[in-house]
Amino acid sequence: MFKKVLVANRGEIAVRIIRTLKEMGIASVAIYSTADKDSLHVQLADEAIAVGGPKPKDSYLHMKNILTAALLTGAEAIHPGYGFLSENALFAEMVGEVGIKWIGPRPETIDLMGNKSNAREEMRQAGVPIIPGSDGFIRDFDEAKAVADKIGYPLLLKAAGGGGGKGMRFVYHEDELSEKFDSAQNEARGAVGDDHMYVEKVMENVRHIEMQLIRDDNGHVIYFPERNCSLQRNNQKVIEESPATGMTPAMREHLGEIVTKAAQAITYENTGTIEFLQDKDGNFYFMEMNTRLQVEHPVTEMVTNLDLIKLQVMVAAGYDLPLTQDEVEVDGHSIEVRLTAEQPAKHFAPSAGTIDFVFLPTGGPGIRLDAPLYDGYKVQPFYDSMIGKLIVKGKTREEALIKMRRVVDEIVIQGVETSRDFQKALLDDPHVQSGDFDTRYLENEFLPQWMATLSDSE
Amino acid sequence: MFKKVLVANRGEIAVRIIRTLKEMGIASVAIYSTADKDSLHVQLADEAIAVGGPKPKDSYLHMKNILTAALLTGAEAIHPGYGFLSENALFAEMVGEVGIKWIGPRPETIDLMGNKSNAREEMRQAGVPIIPGSDGFIRDFDEAKAVADKIGYPLLLKAAGGGGGKGMRFVYHEDELSEKFDSAQNEARGAVGDDHMYVEKVMENVRHIEMQLIRDDNGHVIYFPERNCSLQRNNQKVIEESPATGMTPAMREHLGEIVTKAAQAITYENTGTIEFLQDKDGNFYFMEMNTRLQVEHPVTEMVTNLDLIKLQVMVAAGYDLPLTQDEVEVDGHSIEVRLTAEQPAKHFAPSAGTIDFVFLPTGGPGIRLDAPLYDGYKVQPFYDSMIGKLIVKGKTREEALIKMRRVVDEIVIQGVETSRDFQKALLDDPHVQSGDFDTRYLENEFLPQWMATLSDSE
Repeated sequence: MFKKVLVANRGEIAVRIIRTLKEMGIASVAIYSTADKDSLHVQLADEAIAVGGPKPKDSYLHMKNILTAALLTGAEAIHPGYGFLSENALFAEMVGEVGIKWIGPRPETIDLMGNKSNAREEMRQAGVPIIPGSDGFIRDFDEAKAVADKIGYPLLLKAAGGGGGKGMRFVYHEDELSEKFDSAQNEARGAVGDDHMYVEKVMENVRHIEMQLIRDDNGHVIYFPERNCSLQRNNQKVIEESPATGMTPAMREHLGEIVTKAAQAITYENTGTIEFLQDKDGNFYFMEMNTRLQVEHPVTEMVTNLDLIKLQVMVAAGYDLPLTQDEVEVDGHSIEVRLTAEQPAKHFAPSAGTIDFVFLPTGGPGIRLDAPLYDGYKVQPFYDSMIGKLIVKGKTREEALIKMRRVVDEIVIQGVETSRDFQKALLDDPHVQSGDFDTRYLENEFLPQWMATLSDSE
Repeated sequence: MFKKVLVANRGEIAVRIIRTLKEMGIASVAIYSTADKDSLHVQLADEAIAVGGPKPKDSYLHMKNILTAALLTGAEAIHPGYGFLSENALFAEMVGEVGIKWIGPRPETIDLMGNKSNAREEMRQAGVPIIPGSDGFIRDFDEAKAVADKIGYPLLLKAAGGGGGKGMRFVYHEDELSEKFDSAQNEARGAVGDDHMYVEKVMENVRHIEMQLIRDDNGHVIYFPERNCSLQRNNQKVIEESPATGMTPAMREHLGEIVTKAAQAITYENTGTIEFLQDKDGNFYFMEMNTRLQVEHPVTEMVTNLDLIKLQVMVAAGYDLPLTQDEVEVDGHSIEVRLTAEQPAKHFAPSAGTIDFVFLPTGGPGIRLDAPLYDGYKVQPFYDSMIGKLIVKGKTREEALIKMRRVVDEIVIQGVETSRDFQKALLDDPHVQSGDFDTRYLENEFLPQWMATLSDSE
């Protein structure tokens, strides 16, 4: 087993990783920006090294400084957490080149799954259902028409080499197809000198369902119960849960088989999550793969009674997975709320500053608060606004919701604005209560209504 | 179900009960002494009523004021928690007489088990193994000799009407029996005018093993996995755990059958715990029954994944137990550490005052901190010195110990002295680590050694 591991991150996830390392008897090295010198991850680690100034590019994204810190301290492995350099193939490669183990998949895998078009093709070949569309690229209208006739409308035309919306068109009806195809292809030709196009169905009324897996060096794969992360704003998850409502054990096993097949096809290493869209008929379509631990991993830990970071470290050190698929439980129901320091009523503007007083309602069965806060904690303007994760577990979804509403109700944070009241209203919403929401619900239906109640009360 | 329940307690247990009531949709009424007006239980309850001055007798033990509070607020039931009036048969009776439901056993049961001699006889008749000794009372030396020959030495001679050591003698050898019997009997005759005596074996090298049960009005009984509470100082539990090391499922079932039989024999209502001494050969002997919820109930909640307070409220409201014995899990291993505001190095003198800064290491899997502390929390000199309970759960005892050592290590409490360092040393002790300790270990072996290390370092 490793003797020392460097944690290339900050905030709650750095604290979370350091704690598991401690419990495994592994020395931990924290890195920090000058703004974070008093942070909890710095205080809890066995060693801590400053790697640069407050801005991410000067510290948590500064590859050479982080590598130097790892070499100086004799760390045998690096855990990247999520965000920052966690999906940076170049950094993963540099880490490997200096003889340090990367706790995550190989750089090629990060690279492959980071390119959405290549990932889609790879998954298609592995038998993973993908969003209906053209097989590879097309160059003329007749091909586009043939695909459109098969998959229906609305659909999306995309340029192979496009980006930033160049050469991209939504097509809502057959009548528009010819004109939009021409204009999109012309635009693509002019912008990037490449007229290869592809066609993809626009998925409506879908849920975001994802499934995490882990694979060891001996090719054992375990998949974990799915998570429903459909409550999103601005493509950011707001509330996550596991299991998803309406998922039967048979559906879970079916999705698990797909995920396992995909992991084997690309000889995946360590943990990763495949994100799917699920339509009203229960069909799954590959969206993307995250080649790292995710923010929402605690809900999976709660229902499986596992420590996923411990499994990550074990697998990275060359150990076999210590359990089989049959031993993965789906025990109860877990919900996570991301608590952020921002002002929902003011377009979610971030709210930096010092937390003068914090009360976290820890205590009683089924409560887990991954929020390394204390009185005097400084919310920095340089980083993500998430200041903590509230996680609960109940025997049922209803019980978990009741617990979460109580926890959110009891929390006190003074000194910065937080998303608490917004989250509280969201948890009280009848659609959230019943589990009847798709990926657009929060932004298109809940948010306008909630904003209206605010104006009313002013 | 009840619409409103009064919680006749303070501190962590009042907070704990109020939270479960909230989750059950039941309104809660807190009572408080003037010293506790800013306490968390007052802030979290739906209503709060001051019942008197800081001293327990003026508030938390003031039966009439508490009853008046219950009647004024229209509470349908009273949960007494532990300590204070929780084992006061008179109060339980008064509560019943004004038409309020007592969340606990009938007054007669509290009374019966509160009288140690009657309890012993009742349990003996119910087939519960009791500490070897005379069957009932004896009046002459020959009878004492016959019992002594059967049970062996050391033994204890006790006067039937004795108290405060009057008429009590330890007998270590046969040679002493005649003389000590005569002197004890004479002393008893002189002191209380009653020469009835009884003989009891002195149990050495024993563990404190206890088993909690709950019984509903329809006579269903469930017993829970045993707890080992052998680490004690001054007859106060310091660290508790569940399950106990060395207990096999067969031994647990055997003890469970005894406990069930006892509960049925006395038509027990609601939850209670039977405490046993366990000798080196694994035999159990009845010690006493606590007719209330215990401080250490969280370790049982952790390994069974149940909310015991919810079960208490359900049963008190006349509902059947919602699960059967087969559904009671023994899932993992849980440990509880009682954190107190006292100075272990100074004979555990209490340390009242204001907590200026507190950091509770909540977060990650398997951590539960029932400690309703916050910056500015006042530790009152009037009440028990326990300020919080640290509870962990691991897959194994080893894993739970590792987690607990980390939690104790991370805690920061400034402003009052706490038992943290003492507990930390205790958790590091090889006997505690291996599970090899009896009820005398902490006081007779660990404590003197630990005190010596303190003197050395001064």
